[in-house]
Amino acid sequence: MGSYATTRREFIRDSARGAASLALCGFSGCSKRSTKKPPNIVIFLCDDLGYGDLGSFGHPTIKTSHVDQLCREGQKWTNFYAAASVCTPSRAALLTGRLPIRSGMCSDKRGVLTPASTGGLPETEITIASALKTKGYATACIGKWHLGHLPHYLPASHGFDYYYGIPYSNDHDRIVGNKPKAILSPKIEYWNVPLMRNEEIIERPADQRTITKRYTQEAVKFLGERSGEPFFLYFSHSFPHIPLFASDDFKGRSLRGRYGDVVEEIDWSVGQIIKTLKERRMADNTLVVFTSDNGPWLLHEEQGGSAGLLRGGKADTFEGGMRVPTIFWWPGRIEPGVVMGIGCTMDLFTTSLRLAGVPVPNDRIIDGMDLSPTLFGAETSPREIMLYYRGERLYAVRKGSFKAHFITQPSYVPDPVITEHDPPLLYNLDHDPSEKYDVAAKHPDVVADIKKEVRKHLENLVPGENQLMKGPPWVFKPSPDVIGPE
Amino acid sequence: MGSYATTRREFIRDSARGAASLALCGFSGCSKRSTKKPPNIVIFLCDDLGYGDLGSFGHPTIKTSHVDQLCREGQKWTNFYAAASVCTPSRAALLTGRLPIRSGMCSDKRGVLTPASTGGLPETEITIASALKTKGYATACIGKWHLGHLPHYLPASHGFDYYYGIPYSNDHDRIVGNKPKAILSPKIEYWNVPLMRNEEIIERPADQRTITKRYTQEAVKFLGERSGEPFFLYFSHSFPHIPLFASDDFKGRSLRGRYGDVVEEIDWSVGQIIKTLKERRMADNTLVVFTSDNGPWLLHEEQGGSAGLLRGGKADTFEGGMRVPTIFWWPGRIEPGVVMGIGCTMDLFTTSLRLAGVPVPNDRIIDGMDLSPTLFGAETSPREIMLYYRGERLYAVRKGSFKAHFITQPSYVPDPVITEHDPPLLYNLDHDPSEKYDVAAKHPDVVADIKKEVRKHLENLVPGENQLMKGPPWVFKPSPDVIGPE
Repeated sequence: MGSYATTRREFIRDSARGAASLALCGFSGCSKRSTKKPPNIVIFLCDDLGYGDLGSFGHPTIKTSHVDQLCREGQKWTNFYAAASVCTPSRAALLTGRLPIRSGMCSDKRGVLTPASTGGLPETEITIASALKTKGYATACIGKWHLGHLPHYLPASHGFDYYYGIPYSNDHDRIVGNKPKAILSPKIEYWNVPLMRNEEIIERPADQRTITKRYTQEAVKFLGERSGEPFFLYFSHSFPHIPLFASDDFKGRSLRGRYGDVVEEIDWSVGQIIKTLKERRMADNTLVVFTSDNGPWLLHEEQGGSAGLLRGGKADTFEGGMRVPTIFWWPGRIEPGVVMGIGCTMDLFTTSLRLAGVPVPNDRIIDGMDLSPTLFGAETSPREIMLYYRGERLYAVRKGSFKAHFITQPSYVPDPVITEHDPPLLYNLDHDPSEKYDVAAKHPDVVADIKKEVRKHLENLVPGENQLMKGPPWVFKPSPDVIGPE
Repeated sequence: MGSYATTRREFIRDSARGAASLALCGFSGCSKRSTKKPPNIVIFLCDDLGYGDLGSFGHPTIKTSHVDQLCREGQKWTNFYAAASVCTPSRAALLTGRLPIRSGMCSDKRGVLTPASTGGLPETEITIASALKTKGYATACIGKWHLGHLPHYLPASHGFDYYYGIPYSNDHDRIVGNKPKAILSPKIEYWNVPLMRNEEIIERPADQRTITKRYTQEAVKFLGERSGEPFFLYFSHSFPHIPLFASDDFKGRSLRGRYGDVVEEIDWSVGQIIKTLKERRMADNTLVVFTSDNGPWLLHEEQGGSAGLLRGGKADTFEGGMRVPTIFWWPGRIEPGVVMGIGCTMDLFTTSLRLAGVPVPNDRIIDGMDLSPTLFGAETSPREIMLYYRGERLYAVRKGSFKAHFITQPSYVPDPVITEHDPPLLYNLDHDPSEKYDVAAKHPDVVADIKKEVRKHLENLVPGENQLMKGPPWVFKPSPDVIGPE
């Protein structure tokens, strides 16, 4: 494989940015560890936000000054991935640290759970929240869940003390015809999506115009109620997934149009949470992570986001589908810098448990890795391999600089052609992040090595009972249609 | 035209970034103006650096920490343009503040000056350097010139006290066959490019491996020799134009490969100049601009750069061809922030003259505008219109958010088809920076308004005597070929 692995894992620390001081003592090796309070953890997860949709990741007309400030003060990860390119499997993986195939939370035939689904994240799975509860963490899920909406699958069954949000996507439960028009000129009554507090539906349809604002209020309230115990806040925005709604304060504000309004309101929301953490003097004991569940939904044109220089988007296994803009922030502990090593949302599971002092489960395969040594500047990223699943099949594998596509398939087209590649398409992602130039013929050794990794992975793979195919397909039942036929 | 113009010109000032304090007194309105020393001006111009090739503009594997620091501390302009999509016309426009068509420095038939050219920037043209000399500025051009290599066209004839660099592109004067191989595995002897000091050739072929380092030394020396008079340093890098050479210190250092090595060496060089300005206590009286002469040369695959989320690249009139990553830095005078208003390299002429207190010439049409009120935070960008010339023809026009393509043409293909569009293709660049969704049918009023601007522009247009067609085409005269036939 040559020497690229060493280069790939190099940690780029930018000494010119020294606003925060380097924590000299990595958490795991620190002698004061046992006396120290475990850190709070806040994860901001956006929905369908593309790699190129933040100012700090290159967008020219979306203003994201609060998130960009986290980026300047914290660590910007430029090779960080969601574990799947659509919602349900991506979220299952983030919370459990496991590939969705292991928990049964992905399917070749149905991308995500629907309002008709009767499956969900199995009770046997361990989430960040349920693990952290064993150490006395207060836990809240604010926002979109999408891991099963029947009572025994809701956040309360997975370690969350509190839940406020929508149980599945904000475009589910559409009740009017003419989908394109509904999305282009959305009204809240077009989607009969419920808003829940814990197990109770408190509003239906959810007023999506104010939902980001209300999520924010709920999160600020949760922070305000803390009285010393550590906490885990999983703030899972419903946007910028279509349909796009912004509050009056943000409507028409962004040069980028409706999509920009929505992203700028999320940016404002992040700013509110950071402000609260600072005001309550919690910031220096809180790890904050900002990321997205998958790439931009390009199908929706101006209403969809941008993957920047990356190829592809949501639902495919090119970089644009799964590489997501990611920032780690912890003033005084994480030094400002850029990390070009590989990371994955599954690593948030293992990293959170390690920081909290909770043993990582050893009765099952955990795919997440502990990134904390990298966060604290002592080491290169431990992750060398990234697996790109689409549904239940492994489409591509990255090892170090190189990514091999064994299968490719276009997204959101009628009758998509599934193409198998042998030899695989091979891209050097460091040289060619846009996946334009196949170099398989030049690197047979790399292809052979990646194939070996595939065999090793598949040998140990035991797929979980499929959850996404439980229940009938969701059937569209239109209300008296106010916006005409499609 | 609706209300977009107001929105477009909005100046985004980011109060969260307050590292430098806001200069309360804009230069032009300041009562101390007459007693104040005119500011020094440093312009860094890269060659073929794409919109997406800096970390701060979204590149995942090119490390540009020095330029990114300027970006954090200064103003990042996300809608800033070169005046042409190839070298010679772009540079002529930057230095004269005039569209290249007016000075005769563009042609439909020949993109740039060649080693056989007998034309160059006419002596009647006024450059930033010649204008600033009237106020006692010391002036230096370090790097690539490409505005005529015959003695009367060289920098000394255009206001520069000192010149050190190459007179045309670093891929000119190729003397070996097999161009692709020469570019992929370059050796200095493949191109017989001269290195000049003032009017003298001091090395031939120029050793391009050390050229960035030597440019830097020359620039640092120029700064070291200043003893109080204001100065203008035009630091015009030869790279990342192919062939790509980095010094031993940078070779193999970047994850991005050879292209990244070269950009990271330029980044180092910028850091050296900034360090010198700070050490010599000149920084607080120096406007520093970082930009590029046109978009990335996509033809060269991994050896070419990236336009990020923008469509197209070098030599075309899509955004990727002409929008360039641009930063203005002046500690204590320019507040950190992002400007989404339109700017153009021609504006550097007018802005520099205004800052130096030199009257802008009134005997000719000047296309540049004074950006200083925007730099100092008091006003939105004054520029509403951007004209996209390709050679002598106007291909596209941007007004506010909207860009109309009247002609499109692919670049670097044999027998390219020139397509005229009526109605033009119309893109809302704020919503759709990647120019994907033609909205001409929705906005006939915008199309009509832009057509009016075109008529107004063409009415006053007097093309200058064509300089690029003077002299015969350059004829390839191979040396005994050491790398085999093409």
